[in-house]
Parts: sequence; C-alpha cells; structure tokens
Amino acid sequence: MIGPRTTRDSQAGRHTVLVLGGDGYCGWPTAIHLSVSGHDVVIVDSLIRRAWDIELGTESLTPISTLAERVTAWRQASGCQISLEVGDLLDWQFLDRVVSDHRPDAIVHFAEQRAAPYSMIDREHAVFTQYNNVIGTLNLLFAMYEHAPDCHLVKLGTMGEYGTPNIDIEEGYIDIEHNGRRDRLPYPKLPGSFYHLSKVHDSHNIHFACRTWGIRATDLNQGVVYGTTTPETRRDPRLVNRFDYDDVFGTALNRFCVQAAIGHPLTVYGSGGQTRGFLDIRDTVRCIELAIENPPEPGEFRVFNQFTEQFSVEQLADMVVGAAATLGIRAEIEHCENPRVELEEHYYNAKHRRLVDLGLEPHHLSEALLDSLLNIAIEHRDRVIGGVIDPQVDWRLRRTVGASR
Amino acid sequence: MIGPRTTRDSQAGRHTVLVLGGDGYCGWPTAIHLSVSGHDVVIVDSLIRRAWDIELGTESLTPISTLAERVTAWRQASGCQISLEVGDLLDWQFLDRVVSDHRPDAIVHFAEQRAAPYSMIDREHAVFTQYNNVIGTLNLLFAMYEHAPDCHLVKLGTMGEYGTPNIDIEEGYIDIEHNGRRDRLPYPKLPGSFYHLSKVHDSHNIHFACRTWGIRATDLNQGVVYGTTTPETRRDPRLVNRFDYDDVFGTALNRFCVQAAIGHPLTVYGSGGQTRGFLDIRDTVRCIELAIENPPEPGEFRVFNQFTEQFSVEQLADMVVGAAATLGIRAEIEHCENPRVELEEHYYNAKHRRLVDLGLEPHHLSEALLDSLLNIAIEHRDRVIGGVIDPQVDWRLRRTVGASR
Repeated sequence: MIGPRTTRDSQAGRHTVLVLGGDGYCGWPTAIHLSVSGHDVVIVDSLIRRAWDIELGTESLTPISTLAERVTAWRQASGCQISLEVGDLLDWQFLDRVVSDHRPDAIVHFAEQRAAPYSMIDREHAVFTQYNNVIGTLNLLFAMYEHAPDCHLVKLGTMGEYGTPNIDIEEGYIDIEHNGRRDRLPYPKLPGSFYHLSKVHDSHNIHFACRTWGIRATDLNQGVVYGTTTPETRRDPRLVNRFDYDDVFGTALNRFCVQAAIGHPLTVYGSGGQTRGFLDIRDTVRCIELAIENPPEPGEFRVFNQFTEQFSVEQLADMVVGAAATLGIRAEIEHCENPRVELEEHYYNAKHRRLVDLGLEPHHLSEALLDSLLNIAIEHRDRVIGGVIDPQVDWRLRRTVGASR
Repeated sequence: MIGPRTTRDSQAGRHTVLVLGGDGYCGWPTAIHLSVSGHDVVIVDSLIRRAWDIELGTESLTPISTLAERVTAWRQASGCQISLEVGDLLDWQFLDRVVSDHRPDAIVHFAEQRAAPYSMIDREHAVFTQYNNVIGTLNLLFAMYEHAPDCHLVKLGTMGEYGTPNIDIEEGYIDIEHNGRRDRLPYPKLPGSFYHLSKVHDSHNIHFACRTWGIRATDLNQGVVYGTTTPETRRDPRLVNRFDYDDVFGTALNRFCVQAAIGHPLTVYGSGGQTRGFLDIRDTVRCIELAIENPPEPGEFRVFNQFTEQFSVEQLADMVVGAAATLGIRAEIEHCENPRVELEEHYYNAKHRRLVDLGLEPHHLSEALLDSLLNIAIEHRDRVIGGVIDPQVDWRLRRTVGASR
C-alpha cells in the first residue's frame, strides 16, 4: 500500500469507497470527485491501462502523471488523502486482503478491459477480456460476500449490452405479458463484441449474487463518455485526465476532434446512422456519487442507464465540423468501410430516467464543450501519433492489429 | 491420437463429427450412437470427468471401462472405428490442431463442467467452472471460424438457464410487444448457479459468433437426463455408461433409486415442489442425431429445449417409492433443508416442440424404466459409497465440501 490508510469515519454520509480501476479515464476523476465530496477513497488499480497503451503504440493525448504523482498532487491541491492499493483483481490473495483490510461501504468497479476493439483483435485478446473481466468480478463478489456483505457494489456496465433492439430499451428489466401471464424479467441482451459480452456475463453473475447471497448492487449501463476535464482535474496540471483518440480505446467524438485538429478528414464508419447514448465525464462522476449516496436494498440488483443524450455517429461528426468552423478549421467527413459488424440504420430509444430521478442535472453536449475538446486537441496536436487513428481491428478478423501495427 | 483416423466419406448424410466430452455420461452414448448411425466419430476428451470423481471421493455406481477400452470394445462389438483425441479445449494448440486436422461437419460440445453443486463448492470451483466452460467454448468458436467455418456446432446448454420465470418458457427467443413496437429477442435468463451462469455466458458468446461470423449453431437447452443404458451400451459390458448418484454429479432420480436400494430415506430438498424438464438418455442421443441431420443455416443460432416431460422433485420421489414397492422394497421420503437457493413452489411451463417436429419420439418415464434403474442400483449396491449422497455443498457457502469431505 502506498500512502497511509485513512481511518473509517463514522460521520453520517461519509463512506469508505474502493475505486477499482481508479487510474483510468473514468476512474481517476471519479476517485477525486468522491474524495472532495467527503468520502474516504482507496484507489485499487493494477496499472494495466498504461501497459495497453504501450502494447498498442499509443498514449493519452494529454500528458498524464503517474498514479503516485496524481495522488500526491491531489493531497497538495485538496488536502484530501487518497489511499492506494496496486494490484490485480485476478490476484485473489491481493483482493481478499484489500477488501478485508478496508471493509468498504461501497465499491466502485471500473477495473475492466473496456474497449470493444481490443477484445476483437484476435483470440488471445478476446479470451483475455472475458477472463479478466468476468473472473475479476467473480473474485470481487466472493471477497464482498466474505468480508463486506453489506457493501454496495457500484458496477460499470455498458449501454452496449442491449445492442439495438427494435423496441424501447428499459433500465435493466422489462415487464413481459405472455400467453396471459406476466413477469418482470432481465431485459434481453444483444451485445456487439467480446468486450460487451463480458459485461453481459458480469451482469448475470452479479444478479445471481444479489438473489442468492443478498449482495446489494447497482449496475450502471453507461453510454459513451466524452470530455476530459472535471472541476477537480483542473486544480493542478498533474491531475489532468487522459484523452484517448486511437482506434482501439478512443471514442468517435475524441477521434473527430483530433482529426479536425490535425487536418485529417473525420472518419465515419459506414453510413454513420449508428445511434448510441452519450454523457459528459462530469455526469459520470456525479452519477457514481448519486448511486453511492442512494444504495439499493440488500439483495437488490438495480440497473440504471447512465447517459443523458442520444446521437448518431453522423450527427457527432456534423457537430464537430460546425464547432471546428467557428475556430477557423475546415473539417471534412469521410465515410470509410465499417470494421465492425453492427446495424447502421436502426430504431433506438433507450430510457434513462432513474439517475435524473435521483438528482442528476445533465450537462448537455454543447458548442462550448466541443470547443474545449477541440482546443485540447489543438494544444496537444504535436503529440498526435498519426498511425493509431485509422481502424485496424476488424470484427471479422480479416486484419489483425499484430499484422498491421 | 489413439487409433487410426477415419477417412472423410463423401457419401450423402455421412458426417465427420467431433464429440467433445465423449467420455462423459451423455457424451459416450452419443458417440457410439452417432457411430452406429454411420457417422465418422472422433471423441475429444481430457478425461477430467474421471478426475472429479477422484477429487470428490466418489465413482460411477456402474463399473466403467477406460476410454481406450471403450473404443476398443466398440470396434469389436460394432465393427465401427471411433478415433480418439485426448486433450483440453483450454489448450489452444491442441484444439487448433484437432479442428484443423479433422475439418468436421459437426461438433457436438459436451466438454464442460456440468454440475451445479460443483460450481458452488467455493470460489475456486466457481472460477474454474466459468473459466473452463466459457473460455473452452470461446476457443472452440475461434477454431471453427478459422478451420471449419461451415461446421455445425451442436452445443449442450441447459433448461436451468431460464430459471423459473412466471411466464411460459419458449425455445430460446420470445416475441415481445412493447410500447407499440415488436421484436423477437433472446429469452431472458435467470440461472441458478455459477454453472448455469456459465451456460448462459456460452449462449451469448455463441449467438454473437453466429451473428458476426456466420457460424451455424444449435443450442440444446437440455433438461435433467435419467437412465443409463441405450441399445448401443448394451452390446458389451465394457460399453456400460456411468451412473452418478453422489450429491455433486448425481441427479435426484438416480439418488432416489440408490437410496431406495440401500434402505435410506429418499432425501427431497425442501418442499419438493421444484419442477424441471426431464428426458431419457435414449432421447438425448436421438436429439443430437436429429440436430446434426437437420443443420441450421449459416449465421443461425437455433435453440431447442431438449426434454420430454415435466416433473416436480416430489413427484419423482413418489414414483420411485411406487416402483420400489413393486420390487418389494419399502422406501420412505424425508424432506431435508434445501442446500440450494431456489423457488420451491413456482409456475413452470416450458415449450419443447421443435425436436418433436424434427422427428423425436419420446421415451416417457415409465415404471419399466424405474424398475431398470432400481435394478441397476440393487445390482451394484455393494459399490455405494454412503458418505457422498447427503448434500454437502451449500449455495450460501455455509459449509464447503473441503471442510466436510
């Protein structure tokens, strides 16, 4: 353990929270947001996210500090102490000791391989993704049941678990009337990659642990997150969050901003009619906070759809073109062959009321936010590694990252 | 490889079939049934099922031959050659070579850890079950896509994937009308153990491979299988099938027969209202044959519910009491605390038409079959290991097999 452990505070509303994956894109701003909100935060991370950058020959567009530097800078900037446990959820001895030592009130679980393309590189990456995510979460459930049975698991799922069904997407469950009888059952899943499948497997495993052991859990089916800064990350340059734009870990909006900044056409996969839910990173950290402060009952497996707006890929590209124009940049859209297997024109209407009901006040995607993202891309355009932007991972395995990189 | 490899026959209807897990309770009778039906059969098995018996301190009530002896006896009894590949699906080099060498027309996949209690012993057994089943099947999908993309995967699932919803259970998919729109979606799953969960994970992974790579697959959601002999296993004593009665791998009907034979009360878990689908082992082998002979289209993920009758545990116990009485044995029923977490009184109506539509003529559970099972139990009652019958694996982990065995 790096840094002194914080003492459990009995003050009402103050929780001991483990943030698994607290060195990542969502995990780091969540950890410091929960810390400034008065919780005792312990980051648990294996640092593997940084290793994947090295494997893929890319790195965050923004220069990020080491995790130890981040924690030090946070203490200096805020006066708040975050504890650190460096290790892997697949290492049972480590995880067992960590949960036993800290006896957390809540565990926020971001510690998974989270890129669909990474899981589709080849067999080894598919197997790694499902092994890492599913077994890591299984280990966590056993550690919780053993050492912290009343702890609230806040697990990051993905809207991609649902796929694109031809009916409205509900929040985790659907009321079905069938042959004159009724039941409320888990919403059917049509995940689109071995990564998305791993999250579906997790959801089923966690639901079972809730039903069987009385674990309390919130499954946050998160949309695509955009943005890089939060009020907390702005406090010190060493607190800056990562910004991924590569074909594997980057998302469409970041890629478009970087492409605009370096004068490359914005690459839309296929027709661009693919519609998804999106949210601002500032809403991600707030949603986690809301979930922690409003825990479910023991045995309850609660599912929230965590996004605020729906856009198609084409709409995003158009918005970036417009925002770039106001900065004097002329960006063009280029449709390329879709490396994924997915519907490009489809119905999409996903519910997302439950976090708003708990108090979420969404940040909507604005020209100001796009300006800010574009300015980050422009500021760091000398750091852009050109070869990692175009898609190199094909869902049909016709090309592999190993062959092309 | 043990034994010479058979040559691919171009005769219409003759298939090269890999039977993964062909040394097991369902796999062995399936392998010899497909062999006598004119297919070129290759058994692929790691022999781990026999190791689990050693781990648990139990063994088949019927004395079974080694796999090599079985194959030799089959050649002598039938004139048919079955090839043998001994290895594990987790060993990619092995699996890759086997699928590449044989280029099968169909792969029957029984090669999974199939006991719910085994998966609930402790964390290690839960992790092993999901790792073994999910990653083994993932490896298989990649091997098929690479070497035999037109091959038909016949995968054993379980009726336990569905759990006990309060509506009729359909065969794999359900038509949902919701807010004025319709879609046909995967039937929601409520599996009741880490083992059943592993099969749900497999179903999602295979469905994805069908949608994305055009793999053709049949998922057979099998009920609880009873019976031990088929016309093929009767041909030679060395061909005898296994008969499991222990608390981990045995099923209720076998346990009741053994308990009646040794004068022990029939132990019903809880109220006994738990209702499940059942089928005769002779129907299992016929269902596999029907699936192979009627393959789905490329890209189709076809689901059949493979059982013929529904019974509650209490009904089964009553039937065994009745059948025992006709043999002059007075059996009693004893309700014990349920070591599982499951509904003991529930609605249950599961569809099972599609295999009948293909030509299945079910063997219904009869007094003659119960007589035959009871007679096997009586014949081998000196081999019964008393300490392995009572439940030792608790779903809430209050006791563990390690502590009690």
